[in-house]
Amino acid sequence: MKLAYSTASPYVRKVMIVAIEAGLDSKIEKLPMAVRPDQPSAALAADNPLMKVPTLVTDAGDKLFDSRVICGYLDSLHSGAKLIPESGSARWQALRLEALGDGITDAGILVRYELGLRPKELHWKEWIDGQTKKVIQGLDQLESEAASLSGPLNIGQIAVACGLGWMKFRNVFGDVLATRPKLAAAIAKLEERPSFKATVPQG
Amino acid sequence: MKLAYSTASPYVRKVMIVAIEAGLDSKIEKLPMAVRPDQPSAALAADNPLMKVPTLVTDAGDKLFDSRVICGYLDSLHSGAKLIPESGSARWQALRLEALGDGITDAGILVRYELGLRPKELHWKEWIDGQTKKVIQGLDQLESEAASLSGPLNIGQIAVACGLGWMKFRNVFGDVLATRPKLAAAIAKLEERPSFKATVPQG
Repeated sequence: MKLAYSTASPYVRKVMIVAIEAGLDSKIEKLPMAVRPDQPSAALAADNPLMKVPTLVTDAGDKLFDSRVICGYLDSLHSGAKLIPESGSARWQALRLEALGDGITDAGILVRYELGLRPKELHWKEWIDGQTKKVIQGLDQLESEAASLSGPLNIGQIAVACGLGWMKFRNVFGDVLATRPKLAAAIAKLEERPSFKATVPQG
Repeated sequence: MKLAYSTASPYVRKVMIVAIEAGLDSKIEKLPMAVRPDQPSAALAADNPLMKVPTLVTDAGDKLFDSRVICGYLDSLHSGAKLIPESGSARWQALRLEALGDGITDAGILVRYELGLRPKELHWKEWIDGQTKKVIQGLDQLESEAASLSGPLNIGQIAVACGLGWMKFRNVFGDVLATRPKLAAAIAKLEERPSFKATVPQG
């Protein structure tokens, strides 16, 4: 398999953690890509017209994206403990937690694009405030349900930890864990796993 | 079940088409919500800290989002033909097509927020061009694989048609189907289904 890849992307990190936990990482060839929304990557476009990482080309030649689809695909390839529970309430709770983690990350990325890439004279305060509110409310929700971040590893925990790892790496919102001790403890425990240590963001 | 709802949202439309096709729409109470990224909705925040529609509160009280998770949940509740194939290549192709449809829609929505909501003096050409390129390349890809839009109805076809229906409704990019005849024919056929006719965007 070939994976269009960036060491800074929280969504690529989700995929790589799933790959490592599933014992599949040695079967994935990583192809580094530079991705900026104002400078779309033509190299990626052949496999993914949305020009986003992660994009996975399977051994059969199928071109899969985005991170949720790739994580589901990888989780179907191994016979160990599933990272996406197969049915029942556990499944929907894990997928809802993944959507919450991804949603916080999406809003955080939009704030970073605004503050870090868009020329300063074009910033729009209402947009920054609206997206920041999603991030803050999302983090407060996670603090209130931090128990869901422990227990058998699942895709929701991975998505949340990747989002928070990315926030720390980019330092968009300061130390968001300082005022959320339960969330901080849960993330610290996840970050101890070899799959998380092997994929700490770099850029 | 209760669904936070907007008649203009392509993601709510996905959920409602799945609900109708699965015979579940009569069990869903629709709660209309106004959603604007620069004016976050406090009413929604109690069930979804990201303040987005669709958000589903199940009969057991679980609060599910986003559209992919809700569609998967609804598809698990009925015994008819599944809209998300359960395994194999058909599953990953349908989910990849959903991600492509959702990704085109996401990029289109960002362009609309920029052109329709953000004050004109704060527009950033490189951002608009980059997101527009994702939309155009995505549509060209769909034209080249329009055959995947016929055959038994699946979540990918639904996501693509909802994105294109939303683009027509908002008229962000003009008549994108005029130059893509295979895609136009596939979408026209999907729009003939009662579930699509019952959910045409309004606002």
